[in-house]
Amino acid sequence: MNRHEYAKIEEYMLSCMDDSAHDAQHVYRVLHSALVIAQSYPQTDLDVLIAACLLHDIGRREQFADPGVCHAQAGSEKAYRFLMEKGYSQKFASRVRSCILTHRFRKSMPPESLEAKILFDADKLDATGAIGIARTLMYKGDMAEPLYRVMPDGSISDGTEDTQPSFFREYKFKLEKLYDRFFTEEGARLARQRQSAAIAYYESLYREVSVGAEAGRQVLAAVLDP
Amino acid sequence: MNRHEYAKIEEYMLSCMDDSAHDAQHVYRVLHSALVIAQSYPQTDLDVLIAACLLHDIGRREQFADPGVCHAQAGSEKAYRFLMEKGYSQKFASRVRSCILTHRFRKSMPPESLEAKILFDADKLDATGAIGIARTLMYKGDMAEPLYRVMPDGSISDGTEDTQPSFFREYKFKLEKLYDRFFTEEGARLARQRQSAAIAYYESLYREVSVGAEAGRQVLAAVLDP
Repeated sequence: MNRHEYAKIEEYMLSCMDDSAHDAQHVYRVLHSALVIAQSYPQTDLDVLIAACLLHDIGRREQFADPGVCHAQAGSEKAYRFLMEKGYSQKFASRVRSCILTHRFRKSMPPESLEAKILFDADKLDATGAIGIARTLMYKGDMAEPLYRVMPDGSISDGTEDTQPSFFREYKFKLEKLYDRFFTEEGARLARQRQSAAIAYYESLYREVSVGAEAGRQVLAAVLDP
Repeated sequence: MNRHEYAKIEEYMLSCMDDSAHDAQHVYRVLHSALVIAQSYPQTDLDVLIAACLLHDIGRREQFADPGVCHAQAGSEKAYRFLMEKGYSQKFASRVRSCILTHRFRKSMPPESLEAKILFDADKLDATGAIGIARTLMYKGDMAEPLYRVMPDGSISDGTEDTQPSFFREYKFKLEKLYDRFFTEEGARLARQRQSAAIAYYESLYREVSVGAEAGRQVLAAVLDP
């Protein structure tokens, strides 16, 4: 792929983003991670991988407008049509479409080609470590969902038994479980490098809010019922 | 203060919150931290402190509606009127008003009474450590501001020289500088306990995004200009 082709695909990706600064930063991180992972697999078709990374989230707008739409499905079809219109071969457009279709975690539709596995892993890598924490917290802020839930006894839930949305629930149900879901050895290795930062952050945050609440509630109870 | 009085002030605080889950959690953390700090200062008037903590952010709605309004100023007057209406003494209502007026960081109006210093420190403590990171990231998500800015050469800015809003800018310009701005020894000590968690998180996040971007850009440049 030459710079001109790259710029055309990038331009189309940006035109599909409603919130370009935020979403496009994720796309570039996924692209860069995928290219790093691909260094361990010389048989990778880098042109397919680059196009698939740039275009993997172009169906987000459709999913946002109608939550019944799967952005991987919608984005894969948009990418196929775009690439065919721009004169790429049907084989190339089909391979990119297949990568995008399987980049979302679903047991029923795992990534099959090497490029699809690398895109999947690069996308999941952006939910690991400190960057996964940051993206999740920003999303919770955008959705006006709380950091944590307070239990009936006034203590802070660590997320494990939360039934309502919270950052701690997202950490316990999703972020913490990501690390054994990688398809490439190199993706799994990069994820493990980041794992301790995410664990340390979650534990610090839980300690700060739970120790503070416990100590403060005890003092308050003593003050209100002297 | 008895439980009935506490419940009345708490009820008024909650009625002033537009987004009760998020803002009220901050209020309870500030109250609990303040009560913990006050354990080191037996001369603290706990009734003044409790009322000031519960009511310290009740002017947020007025500031949100008109950014020219200072929420500390507006909240202090609302708190004074509420307490006078509920039959508290003018001395008590004045002391609470004064605490709330000076809880926001301004060189021209530092907190003066012990209770005002404890409220100030408890509020600032909620911007330290992992909790300060979480609140800032959620705010950036709500405002649709990015994690970081990309420099003209494609590298990730660490925030130091950012002129536009970003999480890294907020960390470098505000969060990192908080730790020497406490008025009580106990507040400063609690803040220092949390400092390493904030530093570790910032450094992990910066490393993840900058190392990934640097490595990925190099591979990309080699692929596009073979």
